[in-house]
Amino acid sequence: MGSPFDVTVAEMRRRTSLKWHTYPDDVLPAFVAEMDVQPLDAVVTAVTGAMLAGDTGYEVGPASPLGTAYAEAFAGFAARQHGWDVPVDRTRMVPDVMLGIVEVLGILSRPGDRVVISPPVYPPFRGFLEHAGRQVVTAPLAPDGRLDLAALDRAFAGASAYLLCHPHNPTGTLHTADELRAVGELAARHGVRVVADEIHAPLTVGDEPFVPTTTVIPDAISLHSASKAFNLAGLKAAVAVPGPAADDLARLPEIVGHGVSHVASIAHQAAHREGDAWLGDVRAAVRANGDLVEQTLAERLPQACWVRPAATYFAWLDVRAMPAVVSSGTDPARLLLLHGRLAVNSGPTFGPQGAGHVRLNLATSREILSDALDRLVTTLAARS
Amino acid sequence: MGSPFDVTVAEMRRRTSLKWHTYPDDVLPAFVAEMDVQPLDAVVTAVTGAMLAGDTGYEVGPASPLGTAYAEAFAGFAARQHGWDVPVDRTRMVPDVMLGIVEVLGILSRPGDRVVISPPVYPPFRGFLEHAGRQVVTAPLAPDGRLDLAALDRAFAGASAYLLCHPHNPTGTLHTADELRAVGELAARHGVRVVADEIHAPLTVGDEPFVPTTTVIPDAISLHSASKAFNLAGLKAAVAVPGPAADDLARLPEIVGHGVSHVASIAHQAAHREGDAWLGDVRAAVRANGDLVEQTLAERLPQACWVRPAATYFAWLDVRAMPAVVSSGTDPARLLLLHGRLAVNSGPTFGPQGAGHVRLNLATSREILSDALDRLVTTLAARS
Repeated sequence: MGSPFDVTVAEMRRRTSLKWHTYPDDVLPAFVAEMDVQPLDAVVTAVTGAMLAGDTGYEVGPASPLGTAYAEAFAGFAARQHGWDVPVDRTRMVPDVMLGIVEVLGILSRPGDRVVISPPVYPPFRGFLEHAGRQVVTAPLAPDGRLDLAALDRAFAGASAYLLCHPHNPTGTLHTADELRAVGELAARHGVRVVADEIHAPLTVGDEPFVPTTTVIPDAISLHSASKAFNLAGLKAAVAVPGPAADDLARLPEIVGHGVSHVASIAHQAAHREGDAWLGDVRAAVRANGDLVEQTLAERLPQACWVRPAATYFAWLDVRAMPAVVSSGTDPARLLLLHGRLAVNSGPTFGPQGAGHVRLNLATSREILSDALDRLVTTLAARS
Repeated sequence: MGSPFDVTVAEMRRRTSLKWHTYPDDVLPAFVAEMDVQPLDAVVTAVTGAMLAGDTGYEVGPASPLGTAYAEAFAGFAARQHGWDVPVDRTRMVPDVMLGIVEVLGILSRPGDRVVISPPVYPPFRGFLEHAGRQVVTAPLAPDGRLDLAALDRAFAGASAYLLCHPHNPTGTLHTADELRAVGELAARHGVRVVADEIHAPLTVGDEPFVPTTTVIPDAISLHSASKAFNLAGLKAAVAVPGPAADDLARLPEIVGHGVSHVASIAHQAAHREGDAWLGDVRAAVRANGDLVEQTLAERLPQACWVRPAATYFAWLDVRAMPAVVSSGTDPARLLLLHGRLAVNSGPTFGPQGAGHVRLNLATSREILSDALDRLVTTLAARS
């Protein structure tokens, strides 16, 4: 059994999505959250069957006997993967995780309210919050990449909500039950509501478990989707899951569900029902790719600092001390693109705390990753 | 060559979307904008190919060489269907038509502003506008189902925008160039911007042409998608097209494009490139079904009033004079559901002007439509 990342560059270039069609062909793409992965057969079969049957109408609504099919498939997956008992009947479908976050924050806060984020963090958090008229307040991660409770305490004063990223993108940090409990206590003290983007939850790649936020913070609301772990960004659907003390989702208007794609729902249900083995292979392959990064950096780029992720398929690399970065004072992602013809995500786009960092995508074949690491090492080790 | 509506009830019930899974099995569904149609082969092939190739990542952005692929496919279709020269480079992709309308109105108006609609009209217009914090002002259609310019003149006073439905849902009215010109003059005089939902544009079923709003009102913005005409509500994508004098779309933040589904984009491109013949068959079948409705009503339900649609696959039936409606004072959709086990869209959901009306879906097989008409006639003609 090969790795699901056994793909070729030629195969990848035949795809038409963002990763392989944003830069010229001599640039190797290792940015954006797409995996260079063979698709899960169950998803291919489910979507192909739906297309042949013309099953391309509207997603069923809550009134239908099929209205909880998505949530039920997710609940089965969550029970097996995380030992989590998802309250199916209290969930709500949303078009995708970010649009769901905006809708949920729309009922938990008002325009002009302060919403807290912890940079370095997924760049659209800021963009979507500002677009929704919220004031973004930051409580940066501590230097060790973990939540900074003192910073959160300060930021929560006068805020309405905290948009938690769990697992944390780009660092791959899994927040512990103790950390989540402390966040919940701070939030309760300040009257802040916690909304958790848990889209990376299935992608644990170490020994630490994923602890669902709502199992520790009873009035939190989390967002889940199969789109990240099963490489289905192009088929959008997501579900909002309330904690036992969060009764807010009933206030989401019915029209919010109109944005849900029925075919995406079919794909996600297949992934959640039949994807465990494939997902296990993906996680093992990400871990093995992490070993390759660790070994390569140790041998060839010892000045780079890296805390291996507990989840996600990203390597968040601190390359501030690299000769090329020190001598040029340039964003290392720009150096890598210009001189290494390697596209990574630029650290500062995740917040100013990301200066001198890059986010490298590990969800690819050994060959492609080796090529990416060669380009990275050669470019950053250069003394121009 | 059979009709694309040659389908069986058994086939339809194997689909899992909203139309056939909202009511119990003894209810015949003739509500909601889903077609009982065989899928277009080109769409099935394109999506199946994408799934097999794992081409399920993010839709490309404007920076990519492929960034205008959706707009180009649509522009080719619009040139052939409507003789319309779409300004590809000035378009923007949006997640779907309604979310696109909300985003476009977000840059043309502010929370609390007045936005005008012309009921009876697609019910989510009001829901989405109110959810976006806009004040809904109505300029109802005239009794003949056409735009009422005097009502628009009154409603435009103090308003920011007019959300035009063209072709008009549920009446199937195609606004003429003269009407659009008059709307544009009124709008200009009042400082009102026109946003046009043109999702039904390909579904002309009479001899009148569809006149794109932006070819008559230069600062209008219209929304288009393959989802309605090609029965792809479950695969969401849409494009905003500005008139020659509308420079606003550049103000849409980049994140608005994040909600676009890449696989939907692939499906819509195939439909727009290769769907003309299939669409022609659909339009002919809708027209033939309209003949059946006309004949049935003339013979068996002469008190019903109906203006045949110039576009859309709906019949908007005025059944106020029917004995069962007169004697019960009940919404005819409710009578039909309770006594006829027929699900149609209830007229009053389109606005109070819809009282005594029902919207019947004509996009189905002759057999299913005949059954629906039997249930409709029998129920409404009854004197209880």
